[in-house]
Order: sequence, then C-alpha cells, then structure tokens
Amino acid sequence: MQVERICIVGLGLIGGSLALALRLAQRTAVAAFPLHMTIVDTNPDTRAAAERLADVVTADLAAGVAEAELVILATPVRVILRSLEALPELRPSGCMILDLGSSKADICAVMDKLPTPFQAVGGHPMAGKEVAGFGAATPDLFQGHTFILCRTARTTPAVEMAVLTLIAHLRATALFLPATLHDEMVAAISHLPYLVSASLMRAAAGMADERLWPVSASGFRDTTRISGTNPQMMLDILLTNREAVLGQIMAFQERLTAVTHLLQTENEEALFQWLCETQAEYLTYQQYKQYGRQ
Amino acid sequence: MQVERICIVGLGLIGGSLALALRLAQRTAVAAFPLHMTIVDTNPDTRAAAERLADVVTADLAAGVAEAELVILATPVRVILRSLEALPELRPSGCMILDLGSSKADICAVMDKLPTPFQAVGGHPMAGKEVAGFGAATPDLFQGHTFILCRTARTTPAVEMAVLTLIAHLRATALFLPATLHDEMVAAISHLPYLVSASLMRAAAGMADERLWPVSASGFRDTTRISGTNPQMMLDILLTNREAVLGQIMAFQERLTAVTHLLQTENEEALFQWLCETQAEYLTYQQYKQYGRQ
Repeated sequence: MQVERICIVGLGLIGGSLALALRLAQRTAVAAFPLHMTIVDTNPDTRAAAERLADVVTADLAAGVAEAELVILATPVRVILRSLEALPELRPSGCMILDLGSSKADICAVMDKLPTPFQAVGGHPMAGKEVAGFGAATPDLFQGHTFILCRTARTTPAVEMAVLTLIAHLRATALFLPATLHDEMVAAISHLPYLVSASLMRAAAGMADERLWPVSASGFRDTTRISGTNPQMMLDILLTNREAVLGQIMAFQERLTAVTHLLQTENEEALFQWLCETQAEYLTYQQYKQYGRQ
Repeated sequence: MQVERICIVGLGLIGGSLALALRLAQRTAVAAFPLHMTIVDTNPDTRAAAERLADVVTADLAAGVAEAELVILATPVRVILRSLEALPELRPSGCMILDLGSSKADICAVMDKLPTPFQAVGGHPMAGKEVAGFGAATPDLFQGHTFILCRTARTTPAVEMAVLTLIAHLRATALFLPATLHDEMVAAISHLPYLVSASLMRAAAGMADERLWPVSASGFRDTTRISGTNPQMMLDILLTNREAVLGQIMAFQERLTAVTHLLQTENEEALFQWLCETQAEYLTYQQYKQYGRQ
C-alpha cells in the first residue's frame, strides 16, 4: 500500500535523509508513484533549504499535518512525545503516524493511548552519523541497514503496510521488535558506546598535553568518533532510555572491572584467556556482518 | 646517515610493513641507495612469504644479527626484552638497535644497560590495524603518521641519524618523547581504548541475542573495531605497561561514573553541559587532526 500525502516533521540528518531517499525512489521507480511531501521544521534556514525538495514547507505543525495521510516524526525524542500529545487536537480525524526516535518504550506508550482514528507504529532506522542536520543528510543513509519497527496498541495492518512500503523505498530491511527489547538493544550497541566513547575523549583531553593528538592514531579516532554526537539529541535519548542505559553501564562495568582485576593481580593466564575470548566474540560479530543479511 | 645492512626481527604487521616500505623507498628513490635486508622470523610460512622481499631469511636470531649494522626488533614487547638481553652474547661487537614495541619504559630500561658497543633507541610507529601478521602489512602503513622515538643511555647521534633517515623513508614524522610520558600517552589513546572497546563487545555479546548484530550500525562497529586486536600482542602490552594502563582506567572511570551519576539523578542541566563539553573536546581534537601537521 502506497500513501501519497506524507508529512515529515523535523528535517535533520534522519528526516532529511528520508525525504531525499523518497524523492530518489520516486524518480527512479519503474512504476512512477505519486508523492506529495510536506516538511515541518522550526529552523528558517532548513525550511529554505527544503523548498526544492518538498511540495509544502511550513513551521506550523498544525498546518503540516492537516491533510497528511502519514505523519513521520523525526525530531528529538522528547519533541516527538510532545507532538504525539498535540496531534489529537491538531488532527481530530486521525492519520497514520510513524516516528523515528532513538528510544521506543516512552513513545510507544504514548502511541498506545492515541484515540482510535490514529494508526501508529514506532520506528528506528539503524543508521546515523556523528554530524547532525539536513546538511549532512544523504539519500543512501538507510540503504542496507536495519529499520526497527515496534508495534503499539494503535498499529493496524494498513499502517504496517504503508511503513513497510516506505522502508522498501529506503532500501532498508524491516525488523519488528518489542519496544522494551529495542531499548535494551540500542542501549547496548548505541547509547552505552556513546557514553564510553565520550568518557575516553574526556579522559584523553584531561591529560592536557597537545602532543597527544599527533600520537593518536586510528584506534583512538574510531573509538571516540561518536563522542561528537549532537548534545541535544543525546540528552533526549539518555533521559528517555535512562533505565536501559543504566543497566548496560552496569553490564559494561562488570566486564571492565573483571579485566582490570586480572591486570592488577598480573594473572597472565586468565588475562590471556580474556583477550582470546574477546577476539573470538569480535570475529563472530564480524562474520555476521560480512556474511549475514547485511 | 644511511645504513646498508638492516636486520628486521619479526615480520608481522609492523615489521612487514616496515620491510615493504623500505623496499618501496629504495625502488622509487631519486638517488638509489644500497639496502641489504635480513629477516628473522620463527614462522616457516612467514619466512617463505618473505623470500622475495629479503636478501636473507632465517629463523635464527644469532645468524640474522651477525652482520647487521641496524637491528630492528618488531616482535611482541616481551620477546623484544628477551632479544635485547640475548644480543650482547650473540653480537659481542655491538650494533645499532631500534625496537618497535608498543610500551617503552621497560624496553628503554634494558637498552640503558646494554654494553657500550651497542647504540640503541626506542621506537613506536603510531599506526596499526586490528588484523595482525605479514599478510596484512602494507608499505604505506606509517605514511603521514607519528613515529615516536625514546632516547636511552645508549642513544648516540649516529643511531638517531640512522633511524631518522629510516623514518623519512617511511614518510612518517618523528616525535621524541620520554619513555614514561610515551607510556602514559599510549595508555590513554591506545591501551585504554582497547580495554573499553573489548568490554563493550563483551557486554553486547553477553545479551546473547543474535538480533543484536543486524540492529548494530556504524557507531558500534567503530567503537568495537579494536576489540579484535591480537591477544598475544595485547597481553604483552598490558603487562609491560601495567601501571600507566591502570592509571588511565581510573581516569576513564572517573568520567564514566560522573556522567552515570548525572543520569541516575536526572540532572538534566548538568548532563546537557557534560554532553556539550564532550562535543567541544571532540571538535578540538578533530580540528587538530584536520588542520594540524597530520
């Protein structure tokens, strides 16, 4: 099922990449499909940049969603929560809703309580960059990546089909997960890695010796890359996925404390085994990434 | 000053890349220079692979160093320490020595005590990969990277000049640092990042849900890449740089504990400030890397 009138709220890296990917899919499709795209963004520069991409560009959420069949919320998580709470009044006749927020339990809980004319599903495309904004958006951002979907009490077959068609246009792969499991998983593979990457950067910067930068090589570059993540986006993620993140910090601390103890006690045999087990886990993950579905 | 007879002990990623870079430099130099290269390696497959690259290939350290002007030790750190202790007996007339080990205080302390016919300097090229062995070696591995040198009681102007010429052939940039400062710095930008990367990988693998891998994206890939580092090499590094690594783990733990506390107490204002400061530190480091000497 193909919806025609789409409204994207928030034209940052993710919303912008989605808008670009949809336009590219439309222009390169074997069977052309109609697409009427409305962009809602509060930033005047972003709105100006979106003029050629969208049919309608507005700063006003009410005007943007007025005639949309599918509203895609692509702002920071807490702005998504506020938009979801405002939608029943702004759009009493209801519509389809997909969000692209990085934590899902809070958002899905609000979706669960939407009035019945709304059909809503939670989403999270597993792709990103350490740079934010429409200027960094590219139409291939989601290509080959997993696009997680979380069903809610307001998820219908119709909104599922609309969203699966959208994901096919992005050349991504849909994966349905319960919202709480999603939150635990992204805490482990995204939010915890951010905090760890950030703490590494701060510990290094704390040495306050600028000779450290020429000494640093690709290992430091890669482990600290995501410490440059947009603070506002990360604040929303951490505060709305707080419990899962705290749980993953504990799981991480257990591992780091264990290896620290082996090093403190110079337990060479156990330390070597720890290093070998870690390399084996890395290689299992690599094999999946190289030979798995993506 | 150009030395002609070089012996490389250990043809792994680092020793192999150095051998390839020297041959490439010799073949592309405006003024051709003579180079007689001996390779010492205990692995028969590696020796077979080195036949076309080297003038002499041997498994015997004594035979390999017998006529070398410059011996380059490129094995794991504790093998370097054993070789340094064996050299006075194997080569009573002395020679120049450079090592490429990843920790320097222990090695430089042994170099300090070499008999006077030896001229020795500690070295550490700041380049690497998560894959080990001659098969992963490339002649451009060191190009544009910093090559740290640590002076010892046996460092003479002659060995410094020989090694600086070598570093120029690698198209790397020499940086002299005291051995203890080197060890603290690499603990911060290499050994601590390894332990953190490894703990992240183990925490994720501990979830024991294979759906985690398709969910993971570039942030997880980059923060965990160095968890695949060769265990034997890392064991030597951690045990020979133990104190500096433990110190950096503490510096890291301070930062992670601080941000965990802000999240636990939902101190939004302070958390946002922490995220902004971290991004600023990341950007300072990026600016250095983009506009600095490398």
